[in-house]
Amino acid sequence: MDSGARERSGWLSTVVGRCTALLVAAVVLAGCAGLPPSDPLPSWNDGATKAAIVRFVADTTQPGSPGFVPPAERIATFDNDGTLWTEHPMYVEVLFTVDRIKALAAANPGWRNEQPFKTVLDGDRAAMAKLPEGDFFKLIAATHAGRTSAQFQQEAADWLAVTRHPRFDRPYTQLVYQPMLEVLAYFRANGYKTYIVSGGTLDFIRSFAEKAYGIPPEQVIGTSFDAKYTFEGGVATVTAEPKLMLLDDGPGKAVGIDHVIGRVPIAAFGNSDGDLAMLQTTTNSPGSKARPRFAAFVWHTDAVREYAYDRNTSVGRLNEGLDLAPRLGWVLIDMKKDWKVIFPHERK
Amino acid sequence: MDSGARERSGWLSTVVGRCTALLVAAVVLAGCAGLPPSDPLPSWNDGATKAAIVRFVADTTQPGSPGFVPPAERIATFDNDGTLWTEHPMYVEVLFTVDRIKALAAANPGWRNEQPFKTVLDGDRAAMAKLPEGDFFKLIAATHAGRTSAQFQQEAADWLAVTRHPRFDRPYTQLVYQPMLEVLAYFRANGYKTYIVSGGTLDFIRSFAEKAYGIPPEQVIGTSFDAKYTFEGGVATVTAEPKLMLLDDGPGKAVGIDHVIGRVPIAAFGNSDGDLAMLQTTTNSPGSKARPRFAAFVWHTDAVREYAYDRNTSVGRLNEGLDLAPRLGWVLIDMKKDWKVIFPHERK
Repeated sequence: MDSGARERSGWLSTVVGRCTALLVAAVVLAGCAGLPPSDPLPSWNDGATKAAIVRFVADTTQPGSPGFVPPAERIATFDNDGTLWTEHPMYVEVLFTVDRIKALAAANPGWRNEQPFKTVLDGDRAAMAKLPEGDFFKLIAATHAGRTSAQFQQEAADWLAVTRHPRFDRPYTQLVYQPMLEVLAYFRANGYKTYIVSGGTLDFIRSFAEKAYGIPPEQVIGTSFDAKYTFEGGVATVTAEPKLMLLDDGPGKAVGIDHVIGRVPIAAFGNSDGDLAMLQTTTNSPGSKARPRFAAFVWHTDAVREYAYDRNTSVGRLNEGLDLAPRLGWVLIDMKKDWKVIFPHERK
Repeated sequence: MDSGARERSGWLSTVVGRCTALLVAAVVLAGCAGLPPSDPLPSWNDGATKAAIVRFVADTTQPGSPGFVPPAERIATFDNDGTLWTEHPMYVEVLFTVDRIKALAAANPGWRNEQPFKTVLDGDRAAMAKLPEGDFFKLIAATHAGRTSAQFQQEAADWLAVTRHPRFDRPYTQLVYQPMLEVLAYFRANGYKTYIVSGGTLDFIRSFAEKAYGIPPEQVIGTSFDAKYTFEGGVATVTAEPKLMLLDDGPGKAVGIDHVIGRVPIAAFGNSDGDLAMLQTTTNSPGSKARPRFAAFVWHTDAVREYAYDRNTSVGRLNEGLDLAPRLGWVLIDMKKDWKVIFPHERK
């Protein structure tokens, strides 16, 4: 529709136009009167990190600001494991996968003598820790194969409802980071669309993201598998095949963003080297310099309240990212220093 | 975030809550007063088809209606070629691809003796029409390979700006269907998110969809290619590889919807057997019966104002779909009978 056609599109634009004018007038008159200015990030300690986030949101959303970003282009992407919820001592989907492989073993007797399934069924944790990435995705693929999204999501939700973190003794969905919930809400209240871009699978993330973070299924980008469509007995189903379509980690995050969103994010939050491509895409794409951009790592510095790890861990390793952050102007969110509380249950 | 956490999330919900109450009051008081009730579909002739669309939208969006669908679940999907714009005598992206292959031939001298490129460069239309689908996607892949989304979209936009339809002598972007523009606007005005689900490639559709239909890049699902991420000289780029990731046609449309949206659409519009899986997914997924669903084919019945074709064409063939529609309760939109005008320029 050219702009002429848009203008001529009839009653709708007229109604919308007049109503918008009335609404704007009402808001200006009402002014949301009597509300004191409040802190959008109450679980963040005052300091440079919090100030940088607030300044960025103001810069990109206040009309007339030189960094103003039109609402349609306000995209913020978030890694999940270690950025929105706890990933130590082990990625939650890996623990789920191990339990599911055990549960599915009875129906797959061949697994007893087939790698990498045998390693899991033997409960050999040392060998499991050494599985190459390809084997690892073979296991994850096996938990998806032959299932519809709805079936897998129900299995994941059932598991999340009854499984507790070994140290914190709470369901994983309660071990989300309160300060990041506030960032999600703050960005959304300022017109940003918030996406999860996770190495976890689409359906694992979708099984809890709407309830835990307010992020709807269409704003989840994750690792995906090929799938088969059938229409039998009058029922349409899409079931997963045990073959990766997109490994949405590392460079795959940049590809997933390009394919699913089709825009360069204005802001991105990660916590590990697996997020490098997502953060680089955000701040260093051709054209990124035309607008303000914000990129940050959640830096796990708090062994007392959560975990302390960066360069020397195989789960959520942040090594190259620590070196790159100062060079590219990325913010390090120091959990120990910047966050008043880690989890929602710690709030007074 | 559990519902408790959501309630406790502080100033944001308070502000939003109070402002919403003020806004609602303002709207009720103002009542958008003085506007006469208008026709949301002015280019549609009165009749069963138009009535079915209006009734469906009312059923799913009026609070208190038994078929009410919460706003977050209001998803409507639209095929592009033959559903939103003219696809005869040939799919627009195919014409673009042929022109691009010719333009790229100088830089790829080997193509002169390599199929399927030779067929295209020889200008052998009869042989081109017989190319198997695999060859066809080899050509399309070659137009994407090594390019970023932005580069490809610019090439497509440049071509669309100067290329005219052989019969109508207008740019293809003016040969969109006015009645379908009204359907898109009508659904959006009623809280539906409108998606394109096309066999065309992501970047070809994205090159014009926002301007032509008001559909943003993140609401385009299309055929996609594997891609390579690089970070060199401080610049992040994602370039396409000549290997299909998702063929978003036929069964692939059901897979694309499952992966990208993660919800079953409430309404779907197509025009060919390539849309069967999308329409079946919409009306016949497990759980589809729990809500009203709407599926329709744009049926090309007007040889005078556009084209008449269904069972006997290789471009936009509608054969199985014509048999299935009455059995599954799908609506046939008869272009000759149901549409007052076909294109925007025909309006008085």
